[in-house]
Amino acid sequence: MPKVRVHNVTVSLDGFAAGPRQRLEEPFGDNVEGLHDWMVAAMRDRAEGKTGIDVEQIERSEENIGATIMGRNMFGPQRGPWQDESWRGYWGENPPYHHDVFVQTHHLRPAIPMEGGTTFHFTDEPIETVLARAFEAAGGRDVRIGGGAATVQQYLRARLIDELHLVVVPLLVGSGERLLDNVAEGIDGYRVSELISSATATHARLVRR
Amino acid sequence: MPKVRVHNVTVSLDGFAAGPRQRLEEPFGDNVEGLHDWMVAAMRDRAEGKTGIDVEQIERSEENIGATIMGRNMFGPQRGPWQDESWRGYWGENPPYHHDVFVQTHHLRPAIPMEGGTTFHFTDEPIETVLARAFEAAGGRDVRIGGGAATVQQYLRARLIDELHLVVVPLLVGSGERLLDNVAEGIDGYRVSELISSATATHARLVRR
Ligand SMILES: NC(=O)c1ccc[n+]([C@@H]2O[C@H](COP(=O)([O-])OP(=O)(O)OC[C@H]3O[C@@H](n4cnc5c(N)ncnc54)[C@H](OP(=O)(O)O)[C@@H]3O)[C@@H](O)[C@H]2O)c1
Ligand SMILES: NC(=O)c1ccc[n+]([C@@H]2O[C@H](COP(=O)([O-])OP(=O)(O)OC[C@H]3O[C@@H](n4cnc5c(N)ncnc54)[C@H](OP(=O)(O)O)[C@@H]3O)[C@@H](O)[C@H]2O)c1
Repeated sequence: MPKVRVHNVTVSLDGFAAGPRQRLEEPFGDNVEGLHDWMVAAMRDRAEGKTGIDVEQIERSEENIGATIMGRNMFGPQRGPWQDESWRGYWGENPPYHHDVFVQTHHLRPAIPMEGGTTFHFTDEPIETVLARAFEAAGGRDVRIGGGAATVQQYLRARLIDELHLVVVPLLVGSGERLLDNVAEGIDGYRVSELISSATATHARLVRR
Repeated sequence: MPKVRVHNVTVSLDGFAAGPRQRLEEPFGDNVEGLHDWMVAAMRDRAEGKTGIDVEQIERSEENIGATIMGRNMFGPQRGPWQDESWRGYWGENPPYHHDVFVQTHHLRPAIPMEGGTTFHFTDEPIETVLARAFEAAGGRDVRIGGGAATVQQYLRARLIDELHLVVVPLLVGSGERLLDNVAEGIDGYRVSELISSATATHARLVRR
């Protein structure tokens, strides 16, 4: 059975996946400097042929993903009705997805085919419907929920996530979007199956009980 | 200069130091089974003469403490006016403090001298005053803030804590008392100086910037 997976979602020690005041110049908001240092270092290590805990986690995240779901705030900095439909995501003309990406939003717009096989679809359907469409697009492979916090929370609450890999880093953010929030009852369906640390990050894995 | 220190405060992966519904039978509330397993194992290891990351952290927590401050909810399960003044804390007749303990509460009662050198004092003074009394009682040694979350937060907000050692364990609690909450501005004064993991727990240390 194909799975619903979340990977590499990086949170501060106080639990935030994004700081306050998300905007074009600071997509992750304020006070998040260094949040993804572990990932940058792991990418560099991998490019140099090195292995290690962080590199292995990155590699697991890339295996067997056929479609991605994300929230509108992860897709871009605009809020409310689209003022500027020329916005095509934070990732340039050839985004690193190379498959269908479903962007959840109340503000629909036509799908955007990009270079390299990525197509952004905009949807306000119920998450169960979005997930069914994503599974169909994935053609037997797994579906990844990319983020952000609000989107992951919806799928956690509905217990639709099979595997959630989160990464705790030694940073304090203070306010913003907390990942494991607004999921009080949903969280009862999960347990932590793994807790493993590199020198720079602690990787945890949530799976269903 | 003597310091204000917090040690061994153990939080779930979602950040809770206590679950919902604290009560006599479940002092830490619900959904917290296993929260302190790392500590129990470390205590046993130490008794057997073993060392390790967790044992070292416990030993650091015990060094040079001359007084303790705690919140009323950590002292006992009663809320509001004392119905039962025979309550003398969760720790039996010879509590493991062996020094003056200042219990912050709006419901004052006479000090309780216990066996082994512990005396519980009840105070509703401002935290700066409580801290000054604790330093005086400590006679040149450090003051430890024992907990719980609400008490640690007050001292963090006021940036009165020099060192905060917290322990993240692979558990999900979902609701209750989150440690690093209600400290939005206060947290700007801190950084994470250490992140080190054993097989069962991740130890983080907050210090002033
Ligand atoms: N730390 C990490 O590893 C990581 C990973 C991914 C993202 N992020 C960061 O997280 C932040 C975004 O997270 P976020 O929690 O603010 O928001 P988000 O989950 O990306 O997006 C939330 C928005 O998407 C739309 N939406 C979500 N669910 C919907 C539904 N079921 N139906 C219709 N619309 C829906 C709504 O916007 P509208 O009503 O406006 O349409 C909602 O406000 C960004 O800063 C991003 O960079 C961090
Ligand atoms: N996970 C861990 O390692 C750890 C460590 C320690 C404790 N704990 C747990 O944490 C829980 C207690 O934490 P908590 O956040 O609920 O409460 P707490 O900090 O222990 O106590 C809060 C209460 O203390 C009184 N208080 C605090 N500050 C005051 C002030 N400045 N002036 C006057 N009164 C003041 C108030 O009670 P009144 O108004 O009723 O007087 C307040 O409601 C317990 O379950 C305990 O077992 C966990």
